[in-house]
Amino acid sequence: MSKPFVGIIMGSQSDLRIMKDAAEVLEELGIAYELTVVSAHRTPLRMIEYATQARSKGLKVIIAGAGGAAHLPGMVASVTSLPVIGVPVKSSNSIDGWDSVLSILQMPAGVPVATVALDGARNAGILAAQILGASDRAVGKRLDAFKKSLKTKVEAAAKNLEKKGWKASV
Amino acid sequence: MSKPFVGIIMGSQSDLRIMKDAAEVLEELGIAYELTVVSAHRTPLRMIEYATQARSKGLKVIIAGAGGAAHLPGMVASVTSLPVIGVPVKSSNSIDGWDSVLSILQMPAGVPVATVALDGARNAGILAAQILGASDRAVGKRLDAFKKSLKTKVEAAAKNLEKKGWKASV
Amino acid sequence: MSKPFVGIIMGSQSDLRIMKDAAEVLEELGIAYELTVVSAHRTPLRMIEYATQARSKGLKVIIAGAGGAAHLPGMVASVTSLPVIGVPVKSSNSIDGWDSVLSILQMPAGVPVATVALDGARNAGILAAQILGASDRAVGKRLDAFKKSLKTKVEAAAKNLEKKGWKASV
Amino acid sequence: MSKPFVGIIMGSQSDLRIMKDAAEVLEELGIAYELTVVSAHRTPLRMIEYATQARSKGLKVIIAGAGGAAHLPGMVASVTSLPVIGVPVKSSNSIDGWDSVLSILQMPAGVPVATVALDGARNAGILAAQILGASDRAVGKRLDAFKKSLKTKVEAAAKNLEKKGWKASV
Amino acid sequence: MSKPFVGIIMGSQSDLRIMKDAAEVLEELGIAYELTVVSAHRTPLRMIEYATQARSKGLKVIIAGAGGAAHLPGMVASVTSLPVIGVPVKSSNSIDGWDSVLSILQMPAGVPVATVALDGARNAGILAAQILGASDRAVGKRLDAFKKSLKTKVEAAAKNLEKKGWKASV
Amino acid sequence: MSKPFVGIIMGSQSDLRIMKDAAEVLEELGIAYELTVVSAHRTPLRMIEYATQARSKGLKVIIAGAGGAAHLPGMVASVTSLPVIGVPVKSSNSIDGWDSVLSILQMPAGVPVATVALDGARNAGILAAQILGASDRAVGKRLDAFKKSLKTKVEAAAKNLEKKGWKASV
Amino acid sequence: MSKPFVGIIMGSQSDLRIMKDAAEVLEELGIAYELTVVSAHRTPLRMIEYATQARSKGLKVIIAGAGGAAHLPGMVASVTSLPVIGVPVKSSNSIDGWDSVLSILQMPAGVPVATVALDGARNAGILAAQILGASDRAVGKRLDAFKKSLKTKVEAAAKNLEKKGWKASV
Amino acid sequence: MSKPFVGIIMGSQSDLRIMKDAAEVLEELGIAYELTVVSAHRTPLRMIEYATQARSKGLKVIIAGAGGAAHLPGMVASVTSLPVIGVPVKSSNSIDGWDSVLSILQMPAGVPVATVALDGARNAGILAAQILGASDRAVGKRLDAFKKSLKTKVEAAAKNLEKKGWKASV
Repeated sequence: MSKPFVGIIMGSQSDLRIMKDAAEVLEELGIAYELTVVSAHRTPLRMIEYATQARSKGLKVIIAGAGGAAHLPGMVASVTSLPVIGVPVKSSNSIDGWDSVLSILQMPAGVPVATVALDGARNAGILAAQILGASDRAVGKRLDAFKKSLKTKVEAAAKNLEKKGWKASV
Repeated sequence: MSKPFVGIIMGSQSDLRIMKDAAEVLEELGIAYELTVVSAHRTPLRMIEYATQARSKGLKVIIAGAGGAAHLPGMVASVTSLPVIGVPVKSSNSIDGWDSVLSILQMPAGVPVATVALDGARNAGILAAQILGASDRAVGKRLDAFKKSLKTKVEAAAKNLEKKGWKASV
Repeated sequence: MSKPFVGIIMGSQSDLRIMKDAAEVLEELGIAYELTVVSAHRTPLRMIEYATQARSKGLKVIIAGAGGAAHLPGMVASVTSLPVIGVPVKSSNSIDGWDSVLSILQMPAGVPVATVALDGARNAGILAAQILGASDRAVGKRLDAFKKSLKTKVEAAAKNLEKKGWKASV
Repeated sequence: MSKPFVGIIMGSQSDLRIMKDAAEVLEELGIAYELTVVSAHRTPLRMIEYATQARSKGLKVIIAGAGGAAHLPGMVASVTSLPVIGVPVKSSNSIDGWDSVLSILQMPAGVPVATVALDGARNAGILAAQILGASDRAVGKRLDAFKKSLKTKVEAAAKNLEKKGWKASV
Repeated sequence: MSKPFVGIIMGSQSDLRIMKDAAEVLEELGIAYELTVVSAHRTPLRMIEYATQARSKGLKVIIAGAGGAAHLPGMVASVTSLPVIGVPVKSSNSIDGWDSVLSILQMPAGVPVATVALDGARNAGILAAQILGASDRAVGKRLDAFKKSLKTKVEAAAKNLEKKGWKASV
Repeated sequence: MSKPFVGIIMGSQSDLRIMKDAAEVLEELGIAYELTVVSAHRTPLRMIEYATQARSKGLKVIIAGAGGAAHLPGMVASVTSLPVIGVPVKSSNSIDGWDSVLSILQMPAGVPVATVALDGARNAGILAAQILGASDRAVGKRLDAFKKSLKTKVEAAAKNLEKKGWKASV
Repeated sequence: MSKPFVGIIMGSQSDLRIMKDAAEVLEELGIAYELTVVSAHRTPLRMIEYATQARSKGLKVIIAGAGGAAHLPGMVASVTSLPVIGVPVKSSNSIDGWDSVLSILQMPAGVPVATVALDGARNAGILAAQILGASDRAVGKRLDAFKKSLKTKVEAAAKNLEKKGWKASV
Repeated sequence: MSKPFVGIIMGSQSDLRIMKDAAEVLEELGIAYELTVVSAHRTPLRMIEYATQARSKGLKVIIAGAGGAAHLPGMVASVTSLPVIGVPVKSSNSIDGWDSVLSILQMPAGVPVATVALDGARNAGILAAQILGASDRAVGKRLDAFKKSLKTKVEAAAKNLEKKGWKASV
């Protein structure tokens, strides 16, 4: 694969179960990425280093997932001026996901994190592609096709449901 | 000003009090934008039209702010494949902002919205710039300078506080 | 069955597990309905079209169910002036149902959605019948009989419990 | 005014500050209503009586507003088979409105309440009109005109904002 | 058993799984009770009748359990001046119990409900006994003995844990 | 005044602004009470002593109000077998009252606290009277008269509102 | 083992499943502790006694865990001036842990409890060691080694993940 | 003043309004401290440096206050093995304080933060003193005297209230 444009990082390997969705959709969309574990709380210097080097090594977007008191996305955003997408993970130490969401979303003025839904790693991947596609016509076209495929699937499901009736579809 | 790259829209003119912060920071960063009112619930067709034409008229990012049952960001994202940044506004009809946050953040798989903090329009503007700066070196440099200015201000404040003592600073 | 008076739509076929309860109670009450999938986020134009044509094709009430950032009920209500009943679905991407409830309930002034309880599709069906029954004496009578049947069942359960004692009833 | 079709009731005269919005919009839409105070907790028999007689005296919809442990809408709905619209009022004894919302919205299967947004009495009035308009063509037309007026106002505001620029509009 | 002093009622037979705990502890404490189903929403007149006759038939306390939009305890308290203990039940239609708690607890000034913890029917039974024991010395003594038994059990568990060590006790 | 039957205590003198409502309604109902400050966290031994002596000095009910991590009601209930009524106070250190409510309401099995609404001290006083009135016919009659007065006031307000019209009453 | 420096107590033996994590990590760090059950609500005098004697018998830190209306940590802190670490336990009677967290965290000014995450007993043990290590160089060194081991594990996991690829690691 | 044992840091000078309470109580207790501004998000390297050098320059405890997505306390704790006390500040960008509380409290296993109440800086100062006092007899004695003074004040207030009566004290 070519040089990665998107860096996917997560606070713990246990987040991989969720964060793999970002990798999968980037593969569907033909966008090169790298993926590793970077813990804000257990490897803070590794995190600083990762964020500091991100732009110079060619990354254009960083996707960071974490749960509980989830500091990884915001701390990475404090170091780099690349866009950072935060994925709140409902990890085992989370209070129904509220801690993950609020500690990623509620960044102070000056340091944004582009937050997606709880466990929304697939959307993080799509958003990363959209960010690349803002300036890259080829990616933009793939995204338009992707959007069309979403529509086609729903329309097919609807047609099928209408034809067979709901009792046959439950 | 040159052709706008960022479109700022809001559900109601009463959101301007918050959403102007996005415009202001884009001006600080020298990025061309346009700004108007588009209501998902009162002008649904205008919204569809706005989102449909966004890419072809040259926009690269859309910032959409709304409060309460805030459907504007997600609905715009359902039409265009441009990145959409959502600003949850704590409007007068909101339950402490929770409705605004959740109805923007919790998008289903396939249609992301890059959500920022409650009333975080300034961060929406910075994030829009970061999205442009992912592929535009000049913008990236301005963002690095901007980030440095944040640091300088805090360091000056800290030095001043340490010197004068907190009793003189309250 | 005769021409449908009630349109039941849902954002995803996965919502059918809940939304079928609306269809079932409408059948119990002898009211004609149609049912299909319409996604606000994946088929926005289909949604606009559905809502635009609803009144002219004879529908009198629309029941719309969705989960997470649930925009379907409010967006349908933004297009049609028919009464729209919203069913917040606790879907797999929902934060305990709060997002579904708030993004349906908290509509701005001008565009109401008649919201029922979380996963309350059966009540949505009954409410649709009550709306028809406001002006249709025959439906009103069926609803009075239905209400009486609720009472009879509770009274029978109470009598049985009192007679057998609770230890035999746990 | 002609015989009322809509009954507006509230748990306390202190709710009038909110509930008057329902009356006002019904007047705008030319729909006859009555309005009074009925307390579930202080006048339970009056409440039962009001709900029992509602249909026979010609009412077609009941709008009931209350705050805190708000039992009025649900209890009225337990007696009558007319559609009941519930308005959660953020009264002085409410915990940020959550109690008002949940105690109206979360009705058990069999007894729906059509709930609108917190303090959303204006939308309750519009919803009552929509319920009448489901079967009454004249009301339906007035509602279509009303919907159009919402759109016109937003478009005018947008045009003005675009023309004058946001700095002149804050 | 002698004439009941405590009436235990619940909104649905499905609440019996929780509400039986109140009956059990009243039996342990030797206090006569009756138990039945009374639904605020499906048998409102039966509820009014039950509450109206409660004092004259010899009841001194009413325990009422319900879930979701739980109106039974508050509505019973609106009719009788006996003390009413409310048990918020986390029923299947409840949003994590918040609706049950708030719609029982947040009664307006003038009509109190003595609310216990979510699913806290055992405590409701003990509280009913304490209310009787406020004026009845014999019941008061049984309650003191009951309190002592709680203490003895904890002390025995502690002694055992300390002796065997926690590794043998997990 | 005669020997007090009801003890009103609060965690801090700053709670008096709320807790005085309990005293006032007990005076209206002609029930003797005492009132003082007892802090669980600053005077734990005084609290133990107060609760230990309560029954022997003739108290029949204790009303305890506190805010934030409100331990006073539950700790008093851990010592005495008298019924304890807890008033969650929305004090200055409270998170919107949720901490006060949950730390009073959610007592473990064995040690109930009869919790009333947030800042619901008036209802605590009425509930104390109802507890006395469960066994005392004279108090029971005063409570029935009190209940009737609530009804009369609402009926008068309703009649006045209906007569003058709501526009004259806002 | 030597004389204990850390006392671990919990409100109920059912909390041992969580609280054992504090004991385990203290063993890993070579710090002597004792562990027992002390219930605020069922053995209040035992609790007072435990807290009163803690400092004189050589304890330097107390770890107290409890769930629901969790009064144990705050009440122990009201008696002793030793640092008290509170562990909110998500026990069976808890509302998603919110009651446990708030009733431990929200202590009034004057009586702090050092609160850790929901079910965070392992962190309570580490924090106790850190408190000892503030003044004890040997413990401080063990903690630095412990911190390093956290880092080493993450780095190994990351290296492995990068080498094998995520598809082999899910 | 002598070499500081306690370091007080905050994310923004606007937090000083709250965080000064920690400094004040440390002065009352005669404990040397230093105080400055360190922003996790705007000066990440300064934060790393501060935390890295804390132990070697003689600090024994760090108090860190921040609001919104409050990462400062947890990130400092990720670098140093000194005990870190976190103060959730209800800053202007906070959602009622929930974000501040959860993003400080919910740290993952391995890296504790000793969290105090929302805006509880005074308690943070007392807790820091208690941590020092765990091993320092002189500080321990001052804390016992401090605790006694809390008790004395409440007792005086209670005596005064009992004597004058509550009507003279409101």
